[in-house]
Amino acid sequence: MLNFEFVNPVKILFGKGQIAQLGKEIPRRARILLTYGGGSIKANGVYDQVRAALQGRRLLEYGGIEPNPRMETLLPAVELVRRERINFLLAVGGGSVLDGTKFIAAAVHFRGDPWDMVVQGAPLRQAVPLGAVLTLPASGSEMNPFAVITNWQRREKLPFGSPLMYPRFSVLDPEVTFSLPLRQIANGIVDAFAHVFEQYMTFPVNAPLQDRMAEAILLTLIEEGPKSLADPSGYDARANLMWCATMALNTLIAAGVPQDWATHMIGHEITALHGLDHGQTLAVVLPALLEVRREAKREKLLQYAARVWKLESGTPARRIAGAIARTRAFFEAVGVPTRLSAYGVGPETIPVIARRLKKRGWTGLGERKEITPEIVRRILEASL
Amino acid sequence: MLNFEFVNPVKILFGKGQIAQLGKEIPRRARILLTYGGGSIKANGVYDQVRAALQGRRLLEYGGIEPNPRMETLLPAVELVRRERINFLLAVGGGSVLDGTKFIAAAVHFRGDPWDMVVQGAPLRQAVPLGAVLTLPASGSEMNPFAVITNWQRREKLPFGSPLMYPRFSVLDPEVTFSLPLRQIANGIVDAFAHVFEQYMTFPVNAPLQDRMAEAILLTLIEEGPKSLADPSGYDARANLMWCATMALNTLIAAGVPQDWATHMIGHEITALHGLDHGQTLAVVLPALLEVRREAKREKLLQYAARVWKLESGTPARRIAGAIARTRAFFEAVGVPTRLSAYGVGPETIPVIARRLKKRGWTGLGERKEITPEIVRRILEASL
Repeated sequence: MLNFEFVNPVKILFGKGQIAQLGKEIPRRARILLTYGGGSIKANGVYDQVRAALQGRRLLEYGGIEPNPRMETLLPAVELVRRERINFLLAVGGGSVLDGTKFIAAAVHFRGDPWDMVVQGAPLRQAVPLGAVLTLPASGSEMNPFAVITNWQRREKLPFGSPLMYPRFSVLDPEVTFSLPLRQIANGIVDAFAHVFEQYMTFPVNAPLQDRMAEAILLTLIEEGPKSLADPSGYDARANLMWCATMALNTLIAAGVPQDWATHMIGHEITALHGLDHGQTLAVVLPALLEVRREAKREKLLQYAARVWKLESGTPARRIAGAIARTRAFFEAVGVPTRLSAYGVGPETIPVIARRLKKRGWTGLGERKEITPEIVRRILEASL
Repeated sequence: MLNFEFVNPVKILFGKGQIAQLGKEIPRRARILLTYGGGSIKANGVYDQVRAALQGRRLLEYGGIEPNPRMETLLPAVELVRRERINFLLAVGGGSVLDGTKFIAAAVHFRGDPWDMVVQGAPLRQAVPLGAVLTLPASGSEMNPFAVITNWQRREKLPFGSPLMYPRFSVLDPEVTFSLPLRQIANGIVDAFAHVFEQYMTFPVNAPLQDRMAEAILLTLIEEGPKSLADPSGYDARANLMWCATMALNTLIAAGVPQDWATHMIGHEITALHGLDHGQTLAVVLPALLEVRREAKREKLLQYAARVWKLESGTPARRIAGAIARTRAFFEAVGVPTRLSAYGVGPETIPVIARRLKKRGWTGLGERKEITPEIVRRILEASL
């Protein structure tokens, strides 16, 4: 096991009716900004539940935070927070609203070009405290200090993080997911699965508890994901999916083990260039990356094949191929295509993405920093 | 899944050499009281590492906190903290030192009889902040808000807890366990195993991730526990055992599921009356409780038999009996006897324990509050 530091101060309020508990989690005299996305929270009753829980509080609103939230959309909110002396942000939405709100929280007190926080990881000294009401199980943003922000002008989509960006609390009521489009649920299943993979599918460091906890999430996603699609108002499957997605990226399973994140970095480029949903890019890149990196990940792939897909006989090569094929089939089965061609993206994107990654000066992606732009090219070729 | 709230603010510093990081976790101008036990930290070098990390700091010491820490031993430290205006407690030791230090932290600002905090769960308004350097993987106290305290005069041993009793940080360096007596390691394996059982071996509520995470800890204890005994200075096995023990009782696997705790409550009586080690009492009570409660726990016992011991054929009754027998054999194999008679305790203790539990006015123990003093009697008969 590798040395590690772990801390996660986020308070989770999980279950039916928990939005009503919101009031006690926000300081009584706070000046609150409620942030949200395209307005679905007004159609599905979540907005009304939040307003009821915060009756009598000083509350402003800022809507319109889009999927893959853009800095250009968020900067006016930063101004609003400063002008109105807002001192608590309440994000009501999915990962994009949460990530966008984290950016707002961080940018308010940041001096200089706020894109430097993202692209250079410029350190933060202060951030506005924030809380969240999660409406979409997927990103894990509700219990981590990370955000992924798009600079629309530059067509860049990049992650950043700071301990100041942990939500103070997150409310997770599985019932609010009942009205979500199935495409978003399916993307969420793939996103959570890919998050686990970034922290699990590397090389062994003798950390069996972390491995088994990662496998616990994968097995539960494989079991509960299809149920959560088949019966949209089945509480238990949605609850289990929601808790899986949170546990998949709250940094716990990363404690003491190597991490990859190449799938995400390549996927972000595809979204920035072609507008695919985040989950769709992961469904495309992840199986292709496994195919190209099957030697580097050999030991963990064999473990994954045995423990998750019960592939315990046949040659190692066959077991690995079987595990990759089943992973791809799982993504397809929940309704997320795993080939770039299914989204109308052709091979012409490959040199563009490789060039963009190279230009950014990265010396290598993945758990051993071995993935060069040339290997990115091969991964993308395998994903066509 | 049941509704739940989850938060755990403890910062973990895990790995080789992490004691050297201690200084940055304690406010620079703090007046620190270092608490410890029988002095083994002075023999094994931990004390020197801690002193080196805190060179130049204002530091007093209070040693002599015994296993099953007694209120009578802790009250002089409460006076010392008040008199010397100590504002940070640093516990260096195992679960008993940590629990004792939590009691000190809570008692300093408590008005009235401090035993009321324990026996009545009187609410706390303030506590002295504390940190820990863990030397013995077992109790999980390093990442939870609980303590178990003995009132020697009354021969009572009872748990209590408060969010104010979370350590600010805990340092977990597996190397400091190399010099521990094997009996303590063995007790720690049983303790961590029993902690998981109290949160897992109840009845199903459709919480498959929590179940699999609990099983992940059990499987890892079964795999790594014997290794950690066979090679006392094998880093990886000790590291894995240490992380298992922490994860077994940091409240994460309890999120959204029922809990039992009857094994612990009965075990505490045995320690209070006969002085057995905590882990020994759990090794005695746990298999006997499973035997008596096999119908109430039927579904989870079958799941446990299949997933942890791979008992998937034969009648349900045989699989359950096999799982209980293997649990008992595992405790015996790590060197902790599972029969009261092995510790020289006879049947005369049975009515005494049943009477004590009854006198305390408990309406019932266990996940359904069904365990009456009469059932306690049967459990103890099965443990002779």
